[in-house]
Amino acid sequence: MPASEEVVIDAPLVESALESLAQYGAYGATGVWRTAYSPEWQEAQDAVARLCEEAGMAVRRDAVGNVWGRLAGREDGPVIASGSHIDSQTPGGRFDGVLGVVGAVLAARALRERYGRPTRTIEVCSLCEEEASRFPSASFWGSRAITGRITPEDVEKVLDFQGVSIGDAMRDAGLDPTLISSAHRNDIDAWIELHIEQGPRLEDARLPVGIVSAISGIRHYIVDLAGRSDHAGARPMEGRLDAVAGAAEMVTALINVALELGPPAVTTVGRVAVVPNLASAVAEKVTFTLDSRHPDPKTQESMHAQQETTMREIAEKRGLGISWSIPLALEPCVCDPDLVKILEHAASKQEIPFMTMHSGAVHDTQNMARIARVAMIFVRSKDGRSHTPEEFTSTADAVAGIRVLASAMYAMAY
Amino acid sequence: MPASEEVVIDAPLVESALESLAQYGAYGATGVWRTAYSPEWQEAQDAVARLCEEAGMAVRRDAVGNVWGRLAGREDGPVIASGSHIDSQTPGGRFDGVLGVVGAVLAARALRERYGRPTRTIEVCSLCEEEASRFPSASFWGSRAITGRITPEDVEKVLDFQGVSIGDAMRDAGLDPTLISSAHRNDIDAWIELHIEQGPRLEDARLPVGIVSAISGIRHYIVDLAGRSDHAGARPMEGRLDAVAGAAEMVTALINVALELGPPAVTTVGRVAVVPNLASAVAEKVTFTLDSRHPDPKTQESMHAQQETTMREIAEKRGLGISWSIPLALEPCVCDPDLVKILEHAASKQEIPFMTMHSGAVHDTQNMARIARVAMIFVRSKDGRSHTPEEFTSTADAVAGIRVLASAMYAMAY
Repeated sequence: MPASEEVVIDAPLVESALESLAQYGAYGATGVWRTAYSPEWQEAQDAVARLCEEAGMAVRRDAVGNVWGRLAGREDGPVIASGSHIDSQTPGGRFDGVLGVVGAVLAARALRERYGRPTRTIEVCSLCEEEASRFPSASFWGSRAITGRITPEDVEKVLDFQGVSIGDAMRDAGLDPTLISSAHRNDIDAWIELHIEQGPRLEDARLPVGIVSAISGIRHYIVDLAGRSDHAGARPMEGRLDAVAGAAEMVTALINVALELGPPAVTTVGRVAVVPNLASAVAEKVTFTLDSRHPDPKTQESMHAQQETTMREIAEKRGLGISWSIPLALEPCVCDPDLVKILEHAASKQEIPFMTMHSGAVHDTQNMARIARVAMIFVRSKDGRSHTPEEFTSTADAVAGIRVLASAMYAMAY
Repeated sequence: MPASEEVVIDAPLVESALESLAQYGAYGATGVWRTAYSPEWQEAQDAVARLCEEAGMAVRRDAVGNVWGRLAGREDGPVIASGSHIDSQTPGGRFDGVLGVVGAVLAARALRERYGRPTRTIEVCSLCEEEASRFPSASFWGSRAITGRITPEDVEKVLDFQGVSIGDAMRDAGLDPTLISSAHRNDIDAWIELHIEQGPRLEDARLPVGIVSAISGIRHYIVDLAGRSDHAGARPMEGRLDAVAGAAEMVTALINVALELGPPAVTTVGRVAVVPNLASAVAEKVTFTLDSRHPDPKTQESMHAQQETTMREIAEKRGLGISWSIPLALEPCVCDPDLVKILEHAASKQEIPFMTMHSGAVHDTQNMARIARVAMIFVRSKDGRSHTPEEFTSTADAVAGIRVLASAMYAMAY
């Protein structure tokens, strides 16, 4: 591709592909409710397969139901791959995940139509169960299969909110869970995921595109605080072991750790449960979640350490029992510097305004980094919203992101 | 009763009456689960009626099912009354409420057996639905009927947790809700309620008995905080409208208002609900309860005002929406000074160690104060516990409280 030339992406085609996928599991006027292995999810994966075929790609489904489209290269060797997921929050919007699948297919299509068969093989992938909105402990199920991180026990142990095992859900969708290990790939050189931003930074900066150089590490803590239930009137303040009062002090202190570190540190307490949860009873127990993220590995470590110390000190001071579990812990994922440069160059030469940024949200790309060089492209989200039917990305911004992806694919595969 | 003489209360009789009432709705080894108008509650009221008959009293049930026992005096005129309730928390213990019913009956019995017919009429009462453990908006149903504070609409509007109206529950128990107004009394001179303390102050002071000179006023607020839900990773800290963070700051500040006022001010946030209540989402909404109490009318007013200001200021500073309702508001109830003196004298002359104190818990007595002079007697609770199967008061302490009650009844009615 000469430096003066641009990749042309057909905007109406982008729009119609997004529209058509939004019909499977449509929720209200603009929302989607499409959980992994549900009938609407299966239909949507079939629609992705058709989209790949229309793009001139060979299509296959792997053992967990990831849909792969392949544009075979003239030469053997590791693959240049791109994709995202089509399962949604409950409800979610029509862009989160889907844009990265549609973008990968249409980028490959545009390249094939204009430049024919690539030198190196290009693959696109529609991954399964990123959101964990049906199976709470199965986030990244599709990329876990690709990276060989599912054990045979997971198949029966991972349950949805109704108690259905993910193995049964797979069988209902015509898949054979005993074959999961066959989904493991070791032949991917580079993985690029296009995704909506899910935050407001691009909008704040008035930029359509972000090149992601790192994805925040994350820890989820589930914290149990044990106090003593007492009568809210008859027990004087002195001597109370009030778990809500303790949790309140902790929430403020934990958030302060992130505020004092400054951006891009973030800390959120999003879930709180109180026992006995009565207006007239001092709380005996509070369980709350702590979500803490940073893209720099060292800072992340020290942030977690500070927050753990803070919680222990407050519990100690108040005579409250404290314990926690850490159901989710991901290291920060530093993207491949060469891939980041290729993406920056792809944007620059097409005069697409962009900034290089980190991702505060987690993505399948963090798993793919175990087997491939990775990077991501973000496009601007209206009001920084996601995980809601209101999420919105303009077609112009979507096209800008796909052009960066296509141009980078061209640079690597042609 | 000559000054040197003591009222003798039969300790084994107290113990066996408490034991026998604990069988109706028994829950585990020491608990009780006995909600208003349930079959077990009806059986327990029948048992109270038998206890009154055995004490030589005339028994009647009023329109809401309060059981009244009457020891008619030689002279006409307003009545000296005592009682409490036998409905329980779910589960509760065997002392909360029941002790005041058993104590009133056995005090009257001891007086009748020793001194015969009183000059003035003595009545005892087993009130219905104090705890609101079945009908959340029907606390003090029995004393509300006696004080004429039930409207005909309440009968169908007040629902239990299963949606059964209190009118239907009354009809199932053989009562006619159209007759409620007949339960209204205007002929009670003095009302004394014996009750377990429900807090640790008597135990801390190593005293068996407390004479209650005031009952705290109480307000329950239900506070709604409105923020904005955001992605816990992708939304930077700056610009968040985090309802949990706001609630945490408020809880600490609200509790500080009570701490700074000092005893006997108490403030409790006992119930918290978060929307959407997800680990990875900044909270859009938090609803929490605020329970705030003080026995001094002026201080109570200024405490509520300070707390309201605090909440508004924090919401304003954080850009959160705030609104609240006040489903429960009771003025402090200052007990009748003459009755308090009679009780203090009754304790002193029997050499029963006591202190004069306020009640932080609410009681039917607050309603009875609308039609009669009132006071209360507390007895020591082990570890200050109540509203739990573990609540415990020794027979010796129970007897000490009943002796104070009987001696005061003697002073007023003989």
